[in-house]
Amino acid sequence: MSDADAIIKAATNKPVDYSPGLEDVVAAKSRLCEIDGKAGKLYYCGYSIEDLAQNSSYEEVCYLLWYGRLPRHEELEDLRRIFRETRELPTEVLGFIEHLPHKAHPMDALRTIVSLLATFDLNPENTPEANLKRAIKLTAQIPTIIAAFQRLRMNQKPVAPHEKLGHAANFLYMLSGEEPDEGTAKVMDLSLVLHADHEMNASTFASLVTASTLSDIYSAVTSGIGTLKGSLHGGANESVLKMLQEIGDPNKVEDFVEQSRAKKARIMGFGHRVYKNYDPRARILKEYARRLSAKTKFSRYFQINDELEKVMQDKYGRRGIFPNVDLYSGIVYHHMDIPIDLFTPIFALSRVAGWTAHVLEYWQDNRLFRPAAAYIGSAPREYVPESNR
Amino acid sequence: MSDADAIIKAATNKPVDYSPGLEDVVAAKSRLCEIDGKAGKLYYCGYSIEDLAQNSSYEEVCYLLWYGRLPRHEELEDLRRIFRETRELPTEVLGFIEHLPHKAHPMDALRTIVSLLATFDLNPENTPEANLKRAIKLTAQIPTIIAAFQRLRMNQKPVAPHEKLGHAANFLYMLSGEEPDEGTAKVMDLSLVLHADHEMNASTFASLVTASTLSDIYSAVTSGIGTLKGSLHGGANESVLKMLQEIGDPNKVEDFVEQSRAKKARIMGFGHRVYKNYDPRARILKEYARRLSAKTKFSRYFQINDELEKVMQDKYGRRGIFPNVDLYSGIVYHHMDIPIDLFTPIFALSRVAGWTAHVLEYWQDNRLFRPAAAYIGSAPREYVPESNR
Repeated sequence: MSDADAIIKAATNKPVDYSPGLEDVVAAKSRLCEIDGKAGKLYYCGYSIEDLAQNSSYEEVCYLLWYGRLPRHEELEDLRRIFRETRELPTEVLGFIEHLPHKAHPMDALRTIVSLLATFDLNPENTPEANLKRAIKLTAQIPTIIAAFQRLRMNQKPVAPHEKLGHAANFLYMLSGEEPDEGTAKVMDLSLVLHADHEMNASTFASLVTASTLSDIYSAVTSGIGTLKGSLHGGANESVLKMLQEIGDPNKVEDFVEQSRAKKARIMGFGHRVYKNYDPRARILKEYARRLSAKTKFSRYFQINDELEKVMQDKYGRRGIFPNVDLYSGIVYHHMDIPIDLFTPIFALSRVAGWTAHVLEYWQDNRLFRPAAAYIGSAPREYVPESNR
Repeated sequence: MSDADAIIKAATNKPVDYSPGLEDVVAAKSRLCEIDGKAGKLYYCGYSIEDLAQNSSYEEVCYLLWYGRLPRHEELEDLRRIFRETRELPTEVLGFIEHLPHKAHPMDALRTIVSLLATFDLNPENTPEANLKRAIKLTAQIPTIIAAFQRLRMNQKPVAPHEKLGHAANFLYMLSGEEPDEGTAKVMDLSLVLHADHEMNASTFASLVTASTLSDIYSAVTSGIGTLKGSLHGGANESVLKMLQEIGDPNKVEDFVEQSRAKKARIMGFGHRVYKNYDPRARILKEYARRLSAKTKFSRYFQINDELEKVMQDKYGRRGIFPNVDLYSGIVYHHMDIPIDLFTPIFALSRVAGWTAHVLEYWQDNRLFRPAAAYIGSAPREYVPESNR
């Protein structure tokens, strides 16, 4: 071992008192979302996710997160109208989407185009009102970006936004060119309600870190998308379906779990940093996945999932490893004939409401995120000229 | 006050024990960078910034950050060669840059094009080696993106990368189409050395949060760029120059400081979360700014800056508010005839080495960043149907 290596080794072994991944560290105060991980409860602004799933809509939840209260009839109609009126993308932006490589991951496409939208916004206003307007427009346009990329990579013409349909139904319409039936639109809307916010998750946190330098809302949402993409976060719904395809049969679930355990491989769709009980969103989506499965050719996936849940409950239930929302959202989208690599973009399509709501809230009392690192490297050392190395 | 408002107010007033902006909270361990804020010292991998400024080069510092040690002669030549060979952008990417709105902020352009590069990388390899290769290529290509956007928005043809020049000199060459003199190239190289890393600054932290979901290195760097843009971080060098233009004359400095104080406005280029002493990078750059100023028409800015430093030292020196690196980097770039809105992109051009080095290091022992939020909103409440609101 060289001197330098010895110095590094000695320094590295210093114990450092910190919480890896900032687990349980409070990063900000917020009025938006409360999670009771032990009880498996989730609230947006005090309203339980069960109540919202049953009674609300994605547009209403957006209003709730942005304004902190449920809208009156006219207020909700107004937001729906603004969504409809701002959905369309500028022709130049569609031109950029057209030239993206067809093989690109849709999350890479979405991240790039959301970032691009900033270059077309030359309004210098930086007031809370102007930024809320930007948040609303971004939320309105993200489905159009995803659907346009999907159509173009399949060599189909993009479908212009529908003039009347709601947010969820219009997205399905822009994907297929056909108006969805009411039931399908309702399930998509419900899924968007369930994914709209989730306290200080990694992508929301990344959005806040970006916003905290007094950068702009496009930068913040772009960071959110790039962060959501990872398989330990939004990317998990895509991974769940690939796992189900790999398992292939309910009878093979037990073997799969055993083998994964032996390889120390993660089983997708289970476990959560905060929930130590059944994820309430998974419970709600599971019922819809069950109903959809009863009707379609994909029912095998639901059976595999169900079996997986039983095996995991037997093996890990007491250790607090329960199904999370990704276990059932993938099945639901699959039943709608949505390509697997659009699952995470749909998560983004919903979560943009949470990202922007948290950013707008944080800016009211902004403080630059600038933590510290524990230095475990070499002690100060003298520079060595190139000839002596 | 309505019931709901009363509930919110009561909840909001709960004291929450946390460190706003995560100040002094350890977010990760790292071997890359050490800051002694009280002493005003900065080290990369144990080497003092003064030694590196005097003896090293940007390419060597990149090697140091990526590999944790200074390169031998052949290793450094090899990295320089790879930089030269991978600088050029794919024709398709140049096409995208060509179609960006000319009035866009160059940071928005850079963030978009770096994000776009991901869509052209169809290599599925996700090994540390493959990701280091991506980091090197990104670092090589960022100057080309910035220079191409600058040329195109001035309705000039982009200049293809030089086949022989080093990283800093080639960037200046691609901006102007002319090989820079050795002295100017040296100062640019020095500035890149000084900006290459800075421990857990906001943009590096954002890169890590993004990377921690097991997203990809393009997403991480895209987050870094969006975060750097803000005026509380990289955007400050742009703001410093605008401030100097506003002051306009060394005699007006004292009035300006008094007025800013009265308005509680921030004076750009002073103060730092970590340094409670003179920023060592500012000390080094100041000497170069002085020399350049002695030769050129911009010397007034240096005089204003110098005066500003004296006034601020008299008023705030004991409270630990000292000049930071942004105070002098702006003047240095301005002396090179670089447009003000390229100052922050140049910061990114250098800091990409730090972002990628931290990401590659963090992935060796990855842990999802998922802190908590202190909920201060409404207690659980019953859903109110639209007709009763």
